[in-house]
Amino acid sequence: MSYRNDPIIKIAKSVEKKTKIKTYPKVIEDIISSIKATGNFWQVVRISQRPIPVVAETVRILEKEKLIQIYDGEIKTTEEFGELFKRIPKFQFDFTCSECDGRGINIKTIGIYDEFAEIRKKAPKPVQEYDQGNITPESTIGRISLMRIRGDVAGKKIIVLGDDDLVGIALGLTRMPDEVLVLDIDKRLIDFTNDIAKERNLPVHAEVFDLREPLPKKLKAKFDVFVTDPPEAKKPFVIFIQKGIWTLKGEGCSGYIGMTLIDSSVPKWAELQSIILKSGGAITDIIRDFNKYDIWDYHQNTVAWKLAPAKSPADSIWYTSAIVRIEIVRKANVKNEKLKLKQMYVDIESTTT
Amino acid sequence: MSYRNDPIIKIAKSVEKKTKIKTYPKVIEDIISSIKATGNFWQVVRISQRPIPVVAETVRILEKEKLIQIYDGEIKTTEEFGELFKRIPKFQFDFTCSECDGRGINIKTIGIYDEFAEIRKKAPKPVQEYDQGNITPESTIGRISLMRIRGDVAGKKIIVLGDDDLVGIALGLTRMPDEVLVLDIDKRLIDFTNDIAKERNLPVHAEVFDLREPLPKKLKAKFDVFVTDPPEAKKPFVIFIQKGIWTLKGEGCSGYIGMTLIDSSVPKWAELQSIILKSGGAITDIIRDFNKYDIWDYHQNTVAWKLAPAKSPADSIWYTSAIVRIEIVRKANVKNEKLKLKQMYVDIESTTT
Repeated sequence: MSYRNDPIIKIAKSVEKKTKIKTYPKVIEDIISSIKATGNFWQVVRISQRPIPVVAETVRILEKEKLIQIYDGEIKTTEEFGELFKRIPKFQFDFTCSECDGRGINIKTIGIYDEFAEIRKKAPKPVQEYDQGNITPESTIGRISLMRIRGDVAGKKIIVLGDDDLVGIALGLTRMPDEVLVLDIDKRLIDFTNDIAKERNLPVHAEVFDLREPLPKKLKAKFDVFVTDPPEAKKPFVIFIQKGIWTLKGEGCSGYIGMTLIDSSVPKWAELQSIILKSGGAITDIIRDFNKYDIWDYHQNTVAWKLAPAKSPADSIWYTSAIVRIEIVRKANVKNEKLKLKQMYVDIESTTT
Repeated sequence: MSYRNDPIIKIAKSVEKKTKIKTYPKVIEDIISSIKATGNFWQVVRISQRPIPVVAETVRILEKEKLIQIYDGEIKTTEEFGELFKRIPKFQFDFTCSECDGRGINIKTIGIYDEFAEIRKKAPKPVQEYDQGNITPESTIGRISLMRIRGDVAGKKIIVLGDDDLVGIALGLTRMPDEVLVLDIDKRLIDFTNDIAKERNLPVHAEVFDLREPLPKKLKAKFDVFVTDPPEAKKPFVIFIQKGIWTLKGEGCSGYIGMTLIDSSVPKWAELQSIILKSGGAITDIIRDFNKYDIWDYHQNTVAWKLAPAKSPADSIWYTSAIVRIEIVRKANVKNEKLKLKQMYVDIESTTT
C-alpha cells in the first residue's frame, strides 16, 4: 500500500482548488509529517517548507474531517489521524547537525561573530512598511562565511540590494572586500550602516535607494558579487535578480539570493530557477533552512496570520529561507527595470509581507 | 586594484584555448587560492572544485611562468607567486563544520551507521571497467539521511540506478521503504546486495542491468524516488536523468543525483540544470562536497592521472561531489533511451573514468 491513497489525493485536490497553488500529494504528506512533530501552526510551516496558504488550507480540511482538533490555538491529532496516516513518518529535528544548525559551516572561523552580534543589537528594528525581517546574526555570519568559502569576499566589489540583515556591515568587518555598496530604502538602516562604517573605518558605503526604481547607470557592470533577498512574487523576483546581474562585471561573478519555500511553492521555484538560467547564471549551491528569521513584531498584521487556522503565536523561529548561490557563466540580456508598486507584493503564494 | 588584472585574465584565456573548456578569471583565482592551501595537485582539484583539465593546465602555465615549482610531485609556490597574487585569499578548510563534515546532517540519528559500515567492509571493491568509485560510508548514510529528512524514504518505492555505494542496502537497513530496486551492471554488487537483503530480510531486490539499455517497460511510472550518480558527459547525463524521471509516478516524486564540479565545469552545470528543468523537475537542494570518495585503486590509469602535471599520489580524499535533489513539478516528455557505448565517457571535461 502506498501513501498515495485516496485521503491524501483528495486533500491535495481540495487544497489546490481552494488556494490556486499547485498541490500534489507529497505536499500533504510533508504537512502531515510535520503535524506529527508539532502542534504549533508556524512550526508546521517551518518543518514542511510548503506555502502558508497550502498549509493553512490543509489544516482546515483536516479539522473539518475531524482528523485534528484545535485547542487554544494548538493542533491536536486524533486517533483516526494516527491510524489513517500511520505510515507517514514523524519529522525529526535531530537529523540536523546541532553544531552548525544544518548550514555545514563553522561560523566562528571568520572571527567577527561577537563584534557583529554586538553591533546588531543597536540596529534599527524591522518594520512592516519595508517588508523587513531580521535573520539571526548566526545566519548573517553563515552567509558571509559561505561567500568567503566560495572566494567571493576578498578583493571583491560587492553590492547589497536591500540590507535588513546588516550583510554590508558584516562583510566590512572582515576587512577583506575592496568595496561594499549597500542600497536600501530605509534611511534608518543606511545611516546606521554609514555610522558604523565611519566609526570603524570599514570599506562600506550605504545609500538610500528605492530598489523598485531602475539602478543608476554608473552601477552597471561594476561589481563582482551581489547579495539580495528578493520579493518572491514572480515579476518582482525577475526584476530584482536581473538588476543584480546587471550590476555584475560578467562571467565568474556571483549572486547570493535568499529564497523561501514558505512564500513560494516548489513549482514556482522551478520557474524562478529557469529565469536564473536564462539570465546567464548557473546555480552552484542551494542550502535549505540556512537563514533563520527572528520572530518579528508585525507578524500578527500579515496575510499569513489571517490565514492561520490555529492562532497560537509563533514562540520560536519558524520562518527560514534557503541560500542560493549563482555564478554567471555567460552574457545574457538582463534588464534594469522599474518595478511598479502594484506588482510588488501581490502573489497568491507570498503572505508574510 | 581588482584581481581581474592582466596575469589572471591571460592565464584564463590560455587555459580556455588549450582545454576548450570555458574558463573565466574567477576559475583561475579559485585554483590559486587552493594552491596557497596545499601543494598536492589532487587537493588543489578538490578545493578549487574546477575541472581537472583546467586545473592541470593552470598549474602547467604557472610552472612555465616560474610562479610555482614542482619538487617530488608537490607544488611549491615562489616568492613572485606570493607577490603577484597577494590579495587572493588562501582557502581555509576550517570554515567547514567539523562535526558533520559540511553536510549539515547528523548521520548518527538514523541509527544504522555501524551496521552499514560493517557490511560495506565485505562488499566487492570498485573496478575501472564499470567506472566505479566508492563514497565513504558517512557519505552514503548522509545521503539517505537527507532523503529521510525530505520525506523520501518511509513508505516509498525507490529505484537505484547504479549502486557502487550500497545505497540500496542502506535504504533497506532503515526498514522504512516499501520497496527498493537496485539496477547495476556489476553482478558482484547485485549478488552481494541480494545476499545481504535475504540474510537480513530487507525490502531490497537487485538485478543485473546495463543502464545504457532502455529500461524494461514494467518500470515506467512505478517509483516515488530515484537515486543515481550519472556519468557527466552531457548526452549520457540527459539519458540517465530522463530514465530516472521516466520511472517516477509523477508530480511530487523526487530524484537524488550526484554531480561533480571536477568532471564538469560550472557552465556545463548550467546546461545540465536546464535539462532538469525542461524534464519537469525543480532543484530543491544542492549541497556541495557532500559525497566524499575513497581513493580508488585504478586512479593511476585514468585520463586525470595522465593530465596531472604534479604526480604526487592522492594521499587522502580528494574527489567529492554534490548531492542534488530534484522534485517533479510537472509532467514532461521524458525518454527511455539507449545510450550508445561511444557516447558514454567521451567528454573533454570528464577525466576520472
